[in-house]
Amino acid sequence: MSAKTAVKKQASPKPLNARYVYPFGGGRAAGTGDMKDVLGGKGAGLAEMTNIGIPVPHGFTISTEVCRLFYDSRKHIPTSVRAEIEKNIRSLEKINKKALGDTSDPLLVSVRSGAKFSMPGMMDTILNLGLNDKSVEGLAEKTGNPRFAWDAYRRFIQMFASVVERVDKDLFENIIDSMKKKYGAKQDIDLDVVALKKLVDRFKALVKKQTGKSFPQEPKKQLYMAITAVLLSWHNPRAVFYRKQYNIPHDIGTAVNVQTMVFGNKGGNCATGVGFTRDPSSGEKKLYAEYLINAQGEDVVAGTRTPKLIETMEYELPDVYKQICNTAKRLEKHFHDMQDFEFTIEDGRLYLLQTRTGKRTGIAAAKIAYDMVRERVINTEEALMRIEPEHIEQFLFPIFNPEEKKNFDVIAVGLPASPGAAAGRVCFDPDTAIKFKDKGERAILVRRETSPDDIHGMAVSEGILTARGGRTSHAAVVGRQMGKVCVVGVENIEVKESSKLFRVGSLEVKEGDYISIDGFDGTVCPGDIPVISSEVIQVIEGKIPPEKSEKYVVFTTILKWADRARRLGIRTNADTPYESAIAVKFGAHGIGLCRTEHMFFHEDRVPLMQGMIMAETTEKRIKFLDKLLPMQKEDFKGIFREMNGYPVTIRLLDPPLHEFLPKHTDLLMDIKEIKLKGGSKRKLKEKLTVLKRVEELHEFNPMLGFRGCRLGILMPEITRMQTRAIMEAACEATAEGIKVIPEIMVPLVGMLNEFKAQKNIIEEVAKDVIKKYKKKIRYRVGTMIEVPRAVLVADNIAKEAEFFSFGTNDLTQAVFAFSRDDAAKFIIPYMQMKVSFGDKEVDMLEKDPFSTIDVKGVGAFMRYAYQKGKEARPNLKVGICGEHGGDPASIEFCHGLGIDYVSCSPYRVPIARLAAARAAIKEKLEGG
Amino acid sequence: MSAKTAVKKQASPKPLNARYVYPFGGGRAAGTGDMKDVLGGKGAGLAEMTNIGIPVPHGFTISTEVCRLFYDSRKHIPTSVRAEIEKNIRSLEKINKKALGDTSDPLLVSVRSGAKFSMPGMMDTILNLGLNDKSVEGLAEKTGNPRFAWDAYRRFIQMFASVVERVDKDLFENIIDSMKKKYGAKQDIDLDVVALKKLVDRFKALVKKQTGKSFPQEPKKQLYMAITAVLLSWHNPRAVFYRKQYNIPHDIGTAVNVQTMVFGNKGGNCATGVGFTRDPSSGEKKLYAEYLINAQGEDVVAGTRTPKLIETMEYELPDVYKQICNTAKRLEKHFHDMQDFEFTIEDGRLYLLQTRTGKRTGIAAAKIAYDMVRERVINTEEALMRIEPEHIEQFLFPIFNPEEKKNFDVIAVGLPASPGAAAGRVCFDPDTAIKFKDKGERAILVRRETSPDDIHGMAVSEGILTARGGRTSHAAVVGRQMGKVCVVGVENIEVKESSKLFRVGSLEVKEGDYISIDGFDGTVCPGDIPVISSEVIQVIEGKIPPEKSEKYVVFTTILKWADRARRLGIRTNADTPYESAIAVKFGAHGIGLCRTEHMFFHEDRVPLMQGMIMAETTEKRIKFLDKLLPMQKEDFKGIFREMNGYPVTIRLLDPPLHEFLPKHTDLLMDIKEIKLKGGSKRKLKEKLTVLKRVEELHEFNPMLGFRGCRLGILMPEITRMQTRAIMEAACEATAEGIKVIPEIMVPLVGMLNEFKAQKNIIEEVAKDVIKKYKKKIRYRVGTMIEVPRAVLVADNIAKEAEFFSFGTNDLTQAVFAFSRDDAAKFIIPYMQMKVSFGDKEVDMLEKDPFSTIDVKGVGAFMRYAYQKGKEARPNLKVGICGEHGGDPASIEFCHGLGIDYVSCSPYRVPIARLAAARAAIKEKLEGG
Repeated sequence: MSAKTAVKKQASPKPLNARYVYPFGGGRAAGTGDMKDVLGGKGAGLAEMTNIGIPVPHGFTISTEVCRLFYDSRKHIPTSVRAEIEKNIRSLEKINKKALGDTSDPLLVSVRSGAKFSMPGMMDTILNLGLNDKSVEGLAEKTGNPRFAWDAYRRFIQMFASVVERVDKDLFENIIDSMKKKYGAKQDIDLDVVALKKLVDRFKALVKKQTGKSFPQEPKKQLYMAITAVLLSWHNPRAVFYRKQYNIPHDIGTAVNVQTMVFGNKGGNCATGVGFTRDPSSGEKKLYAEYLINAQGEDVVAGTRTPKLIETMEYELPDVYKQICNTAKRLEKHFHDMQDFEFTIEDGRLYLLQTRTGKRTGIAAAKIAYDMVRERVINTEEALMRIEPEHIEQFLFPIFNPEEKKNFDVIAVGLPASPGAAAGRVCFDPDTAIKFKDKGERAILVRRETSPDDIHGMAVSEGILTARGGRTSHAAVVGRQMGKVCVVGVENIEVKESSKLFRVGSLEVKEGDYISIDGFDGTVCPGDIPVISSEVIQVIEGKIPPEKSEKYVVFTTILKWADRARRLGIRTNADTPYESAIAVKFGAHGIGLCRTEHMFFHEDRVPLMQGMIMAETTEKRIKFLDKLLPMQKEDFKGIFREMNGYPVTIRLLDPPLHEFLPKHTDLLMDIKEIKLKGGSKRKLKEKLTVLKRVEELHEFNPMLGFRGCRLGILMPEITRMQTRAIMEAACEATAEGIKVIPEIMVPLVGMLNEFKAQKNIIEEVAKDVIKKYKKKIRYRVGTMIEVPRAVLVADNIAKEAEFFSFGTNDLTQAVFAFSRDDAAKFIIPYMQMKVSFGDKEVDMLEKDPFSTIDVKGVGAFMRYAYQKGKEARPNLKVGICGEHGGDPASIEFCHGLGIDYVSCSPYRVPIARLAAARAAIKEKLEGG
Repeated sequence: MSAKTAVKKQASPKPLNARYVYPFGGGRAAGTGDMKDVLGGKGAGLAEMTNIGIPVPHGFTISTEVCRLFYDSRKHIPTSVRAEIEKNIRSLEKINKKALGDTSDPLLVSVRSGAKFSMPGMMDTILNLGLNDKSVEGLAEKTGNPRFAWDAYRRFIQMFASVVERVDKDLFENIIDSMKKKYGAKQDIDLDVVALKKLVDRFKALVKKQTGKSFPQEPKKQLYMAITAVLLSWHNPRAVFYRKQYNIPHDIGTAVNVQTMVFGNKGGNCATGVGFTRDPSSGEKKLYAEYLINAQGEDVVAGTRTPKLIETMEYELPDVYKQICNTAKRLEKHFHDMQDFEFTIEDGRLYLLQTRTGKRTGIAAAKIAYDMVRERVINTEEALMRIEPEHIEQFLFPIFNPEEKKNFDVIAVGLPASPGAAAGRVCFDPDTAIKFKDKGERAILVRRETSPDDIHGMAVSEGILTARGGRTSHAAVVGRQMGKVCVVGVENIEVKESSKLFRVGSLEVKEGDYISIDGFDGTVCPGDIPVISSEVIQVIEGKIPPEKSEKYVVFTTILKWADRARRLGIRTNADTPYESAIAVKFGAHGIGLCRTEHMFFHEDRVPLMQGMIMAETTEKRIKFLDKLLPMQKEDFKGIFREMNGYPVTIRLLDPPLHEFLPKHTDLLMDIKEIKLKGGSKRKLKEKLTVLKRVEELHEFNPMLGFRGCRLGILMPEITRMQTRAIMEAACEATAEGIKVIPEIMVPLVGMLNEFKAQKNIIEEVAKDVIKKYKKKIRYRVGTMIEVPRAVLVADNIAKEAEFFSFGTNDLTQAVFAFSRDDAAKFIIPYMQMKVSFGDKEVDMLEKDPFSTIDVKGVGAFMRYAYQKGKEARPNLKVGICGEHGGDPASIEFCHGLGIDYVSCSPYRVPIARLAAARAAIKEKLEGG
């Protein structure tokens, strides 16, 4: 039954002549490139290359369905599948004119896993299968290269025994080491045939000792054992863990590829290598590949010999070089994207063993897409779908000065977990990071791995480096959240926290030494490389002329394409004329949130604000407000000038008043000190007065306290002053010829009545100002939607409010009952926790809801409010101004919701433009 | 148009012969008692009394529709209405055989307002209308009592001029005073005919001077002017304000009653009085009335003569006494409720002028309803609908020792705004209240009126007394909220806050003097009357045997009736065996919320709890938890014993951990002191260690922080210990023969995953304990619904949770974003604020959402969660355990919602039982 179900799951049509096994090679394949579900990534790539005439060694792919059948049949390969495999083996023998196990010219094959989603290194591979005590002699004779044959045999035994029979790898290495000593060989390659034959004997003896059975000589037996081992590797703990980490379903299974061996290690006109069709780091359009003459693939990976750059091949093997260049072009032309491929050259003949879309840096992704549009390979929408918002973000992060970086050694490379460039003094514990920070030093926190106890140290460091962990480790998650440069999983460093040092090979880096870490490529360099603004930022800041920066051209062109594709409007959260100007340069079309309180925090205004708060009567309070009025007015005028023609949404005073007063504990301590030491009585009295007011304003939960519209309702004179400042600024800017569209926003509304009370005041003052200035100003009055209750009564509120802006920070806070200031304590552990639901485990919390909108909860509330609001007022304008306005996943949600715009910090405007475009294109691709 | 609309609004059928005017008297009335919409309360009462043969002076009621027509016709009485009035006047003249303005025997009438809802003293009344310079002579002659006639005339001029022509009342009083001086008269009654005639002259001269016109002599003109004045009074500012206060619609209008005058002041066999058919204070079944011989109604009200008790009349006017007794019986028999009536005796003949349902104290309401069921006048459901939950509450508040209270004088009476009895020292400002409290004295805060600045003083006082304000004034609202005894609007006291004294007549009460205030009846006595528990509480506490207390019998009988009528289950919030026992005595059928943290606050456990919190490792934490385990187990066992057979819902640890540690500021101050003064180093180190942990645990918004299930998820050992304590207690109690139904409740769940993670732990431990004890325990695992997100995903949660309990405190907090600990600052002003919506004004906030469920917001969330939960799990048990579980309006909402039970504090269980019954009966009556 489950076999049938599994079959139904597959979308691709199945060729009539193949049921479970799909042959490829020689220009004809049973499968195609879009059959990844059935053939896995590798199998589909091999089939597709075959189909387009690229030389691929013959072979066949055992479909992923077999993997599912295997697990449904108590880990047995069903008879019908075996029959198909047999048929395909016979066919392979016929094509190659060689037979498995043949004593004079044996057919050798590789057996490799290949799932739909790449899981590098997670599953098993066996090469040179088909060798045995007899066929090795045949191979030696046929190739005239006994050393090659015996080396292949010892490699096969080693690999087969460790993968299939689970013999400890180290035991083989120990034997090799002792052999090398005995024969005075430095490297494996220095062992001669005699030594290799001995090695084979000792390997076989080891297998017998460890497994109790002789090494299998029968090639068919070897083959089925190898296939079984690959299928079993689907559920090995490493693979299961990897899938959990990357949300890959456990039930899709792996395919198994059985392929004729070709050898890059048969002599001087043999080679093996890997390549990218363009530079994966810069995106430059040029073949980027490396190779080793007379070597097998594993030698490239092992790193014992340094591969040569492909450019050298033009002189070493000019014909092959041409073949590779042509093949790379054909691959790109066919796949319409940069490819990452593996190749082997056997006796001067090129074979491709794998091709797949190549991984690239963010900047390369943008550059490649940009170029491919100009090359007419793809259109702009395809280009946009290939550039992730976090790719475009990489144009904005600080970088190491490229001229300087050249002069530093790279001592290690890890996973780049959070982009940017950071240099500073190494420290091994959070408290030392704080000590450095306090001394005005930059710190790089180096840990084996981080834990919640390190957070305070992470917060003060420039960057974080860990020896362990992947992109979802604690360090990576927190680093990204804090915007810290972060490199994780640097496995070749050895961190000795107790000794306050780390080692890379023989190099020791101690506490206080400088290192530099690069969050774009994961490189680690000793020393202090200067950090500079990115090229794009330098253009924005006017330091480089736009036309001088290719990066800037790529960046802006892509965003122009995005503007054509997107439906969502993009605004910015800006509180000053300066921020407004930056945002406009980044392409913002208006301000979605101008937080007036930030203006009050200016040094020269805090005393006035404090006076206002300390006032015992309304009259006194008004006196201070009167002094603040002209200041706020000038601020607004400056913003209106920058935003000429674009709407500016200004939020009335929002934070709890105590934020403007000294801290309670500081006051208490000062008073205690004056009392104990005996200080000025006048000063004591002053402090006591402030203390009294601070205590009056003290709240247990200030986020749920006396703030937002509650301030303006209980102290309407504040709303009056702010409205006057906004409207007078609007009138005066209009007189300057500026086009002003003010939108006054009431914060923290939970009830229609609250909004209406504030609207009444705003309208009264606005009318008065407009009359006084005799200007025609079209202004709007609207509200934040950030209190859950407002969601429920959104229809009523919309009858009075002209616009809504989702304050998703506060809304998330209330919907989850998670204090934004405190919740990291449990949100981060939650994100690393699993919950068991009997047969399956799920993440306790997939994403931080303060970063990405929680679609099920907060998102559902937003949908409700949006619908109710629109029902009540069809031309209601709706936006979002929480932090989520700059988060791609949240932007996609907002696009789907149908709101008018998102608003985010100036530096996230480009990301938002791209994310909005991608959401629109995705919707179109999915059929709307 | 509006007339038609108005007509349509009226439910009662209109008699064919009356369009706008409804005659009554002489055994036949055009209207009936249920036509309050049309006739107003007074008019309907007069019509009904007429219909049942009770003697009522002839008259007619001008319907409320006329009032609406009047305002729609630019304040003119329409011609068609005038025609009907004329017809009815003629009919009145015919019946009385007297004519308006007749010079020998004039018809005199009263003109009185009368709206559907009683608005005492808010609108105008004119008596003796029809008198003029000629008819006064006729009256004198006809009655043979010139003094009576002239006194009536001068009263008429005085009343008419002040009400209709708005001449200042004081001007008349000044003239009377000077006349009294001149004639050496002590009281008005001492003025003889000569003096009264002079008075009339001077009154008329005053009118002429003030209005520029002579006093109108034409009775018809007087009549229309009077009717117009009454209609105008509907919109006088006092009346408008009153309606706003009591939510009476402004558009229903008043009726006008024109009625033949009868005179209680014509001589010795005349009298006037008021009465209740039962004692409105105790509810005792006996006529309770007062009268004055030879007096008009206003004399009774003025209080210058002390009325006699009705018992005296048996000797003074035995026939009339019998008539009154019979009439009272007939009124009750007809209206099936205790009546409050006004009567006049003219020449030995009884006339009823008004009847209405009598106001009564809570205890009287219960007693009367109880008696009426026994008398078979009403059934139990009718009885329950007449007893408000706050009536039954009055059986529980502390009272003055009745034996002692007798010995104290009542110096003033105000509005009882918050029940109970309180005695203490008078103070006039909040800071003095605190000073008294600090000295261990009881304080009674006396203010002209209170404001938010007084709150800290109110909080420490036993009771609050204000000279101004009604039941919705600041003092009343806050007093009720704080559970303080409160008497407001004591108008005859003069508060001199600056002199720290108040005056009642000549009596001065100074700061520090004792007074006693009674929140049941609003009486104020000088001195310190001992306060004792109420009779019912004394029975519950075993101090009085139940059969000895009639009050207890009434109380429990009513609640038994309630139990028969209600559908909602009633549980209690109890944390100790003692509270559980009390709750069971009050009729709770289970515990809806047992807060385990309260157990940790015990003196002997705080150190263990602190050790647990300070533990640096899980192992150390478990050591402390192991010590707490047997203590919690014993607590649970005690509760299970008390709740034998009833379910017990136990909530896992909920509050933020810092609540168990010393306060941050205290620690800081101690440390500062040690540092400055130089103290023990060991002590300093200890303090610093605690400080570090306190700072780690510090949160900006602890209510949204590390608490609830977040504790048990991050420290699963806490959940394990608590589950073990519950389940072991359950097993051990079962072994004792107790029937145990434990329900384990996970707090602050926002996501299914959180609940599931805790449930997994609970089930694992429960299984283990059950296995160990070999007992069969049926336990449930459920969750609080208090986080808005949980509402949205209630269906998913219900798939795993066996019960929901609405935590409406936290839910309200999150839905409004109102911190419960801080929100009084704006909630109280909100409740006293109006918001304008153009033509109408509404309350900013009608009710404190922490007291009564906000139906539109929080209620809508509850409905959603309930429906989703039930869809997913039809046998889901749903209750409520927030403070709202004891609030009658919220209980009615919960009944309508359909949930299984409400849970409230032990002392509110009786209120909840009654409220649940009333909700069920109301639903039935409304055909629900």
